[in-house]
Amino acid sequence: MLKTPYLLFLGDAPDGLAAKVAQGVKDWRPENCVGQLRQAGCNADMGLPDMTIQQALEAGAKTLVVGVANRGGKISDTWNAAFEEALAAGMDIASGLHNLLTDNPRLVALAEKHGTSLFDVRIPQHSFPIASGKKRTGKRCLAVGTDCSVGKMYTGIAMEKVMRERGMKATFRATGQTGILITGGGIPLDAVVADFMAGAVEWLTPDNDPDHWDLIEGQGSLFHASYSGVTMALIHGGAPDNLVLCHEPTRETMRGLPDYQLPSLELVRDTALVLARFVNPDCKFIGVSVNTSALAEDEAVNLLQEIEDRMELPCVDPFRHGADRLVDALS
Amino acid sequence: MLKTPYLLFLGDAPDGLAAKVAQGVKDWRPENCVGQLRQAGCNADMGLPDMTIQQALEAGAKTLVVGVANRGGKISDTWNAAFEEALAAGMDIASGLHNLLTDNPRLVALAEKHGTSLFDVRIPQHSFPIASGKKRTGKRCLAVGTDCSVGKMYTGIAMEKVMRERGMKATFRATGQTGILITGGGIPLDAVVADFMAGAVEWLTPDNDPDHWDLIEGQGSLFHASYSGVTMALIHGGAPDNLVLCHEPTRETMRGLPDYQLPSLELVRDTALVLARFVNPDCKFIGVSVNTSALAEDEAVNLLQEIEDRMELPCVDPFRHGADRLVDALS
Repeated sequence: MLKTPYLLFLGDAPDGLAAKVAQGVKDWRPENCVGQLRQAGCNADMGLPDMTIQQALEAGAKTLVVGVANRGGKISDTWNAAFEEALAAGMDIASGLHNLLTDNPRLVALAEKHGTSLFDVRIPQHSFPIASGKKRTGKRCLAVGTDCSVGKMYTGIAMEKVMRERGMKATFRATGQTGILITGGGIPLDAVVADFMAGAVEWLTPDNDPDHWDLIEGQGSLFHASYSGVTMALIHGGAPDNLVLCHEPTRETMRGLPDYQLPSLELVRDTALVLARFVNPDCKFIGVSVNTSALAEDEAVNLLQEIEDRMELPCVDPFRHGADRLVDALS
Repeated sequence: MLKTPYLLFLGDAPDGLAAKVAQGVKDWRPENCVGQLRQAGCNADMGLPDMTIQQALEAGAKTLVVGVANRGGKISDTWNAAFEEALAAGMDIASGLHNLLTDNPRLVALAEKHGTSLFDVRIPQHSFPIASGKKRTGKRCLAVGTDCSVGKMYTGIAMEKVMRERGMKATFRATGQTGILITGGGIPLDAVVADFMAGAVEWLTPDNDPDHWDLIEGQGSLFHASYSGVTMALIHGGAPDNLVLCHEPTRETMRGLPDYQLPSLELVRDTALVLARFVNPDCKFIGVSVNTSALAEDEAVNLLQEIEDRMELPCVDPFRHGADRLVDALS
């Protein structure tokens, strides 16, 4: 787990999109953010107090979270200067960049000297066991999708927020770098060695109170030729009680696979259920989560109703209309 | 690819079972074996000429293949002495042991000094791309199973042998350490990082002649909670034209999962087909391969006939009765 609270590093992000990791932390864990650090040329703004490293330290910041994506893998000298200052001041640094902090000998030496830590969240920080397939206590809900990047992370974290507001016991379990930076913990499942994928998911979602829900972040799709193995490990390692089916209705071909049309909602539902019920016979779909961001409000409402009638499940866009109906359906 | 021919290292194998990797090489690639090296206490015998390192070198051996499994992960001093002698004599060493050759600094230094190589076949020797999902030329057949260790490797390699005897173009594609040592090449798929599993399988089974068949070694099972992700990557990365369903009829629970009964042949068939056809719409099952080693001949014959009638597919034990009928069914 990353130490909280954070100073969000926006660097010279040219726009808000380049700082979407920071936006995610700010949106979902505002209580963990003491401020933002912006450098010359930065056009992103999280609406947090602008701070220097020193000011953030005085405000209690424990970790500098790199909230900006770099283009073409380059980290500028001005970024590195800020990272060095943070380490020297006693802060940890957490990053999901392709270029690893721990590949920079200067940063490694500084961290060692000052007793601080570098967290490259793309790299697993543990070794994991082979999955045991054993039944665990507590409840689990997994988001599965018709494709990659259709809103699985958003769905899970939005459900967690609603559940916490209602006083329910809920933990979003991040399985990708953005989710890990947002919530401060998790496993970068796509970087785990094949034999240990399902075991890593079991490790991430251990025994818990009978009324506690893990909201497990989904990855890939059972029908995505590049990443279906990761999805499979989530279904068997997570042994979910409930599944939410995630979809993006305007996508014409699968992400990164221009020759593939998306599978139907029915095909994903039926196939995922057969596989999930082998480890958890009571598993069922409790709702559909549709990313309608490309649609006008009336189009979105009509489509959600159409899918709800067709699938006979609550169908919502949790960003547009909230995740309440998905939470209502958990059982 | 490992350099051939081999000297098979049997060490002090207490019995034939401890030398089953050597047995596999001898059975399936006898043309690659110049001899065997046995030490004091060895009770295994491949029926090959006993040779010293020096004699094997004179007979043309290029690689010492460790054909014996060590107990409890320990490599004895007498083994290491033989390994050092082989490296100094200019031979490579290939091993599937848990203890890595490349973790032994003396061996690493010797290999470097003499320009020889250490191959730990449990460790991927390449980096692999993300799977593209693109259609490749040539044909592919994948073995899928109701469980781990039901005869998937044996089925593929036995089919390859029949096909080569018939003058067909066929290549067994190893995806596990034993298969890699037997055939001299392949990928230890369970040691590949999750994101690259399907890409590794695509890399292993590239474009080929229209009438060439890859016989892809299966791993795990779609219904094995620990390893199903690896199986999934084989189905989507392999994009098989044909599938063979492998089964061990006397197993009561799944390997390593005492709480799980095996899935039915029908469940594996139907689920694998849906997933496989998403990347290769013409995919079909062409036969069932049953490991009947625990049954008497008449029991075996009856069971094979029963499954053949039930599944409406050729059903054979390729070890007992040959793989010809599976090869006949390829299309």
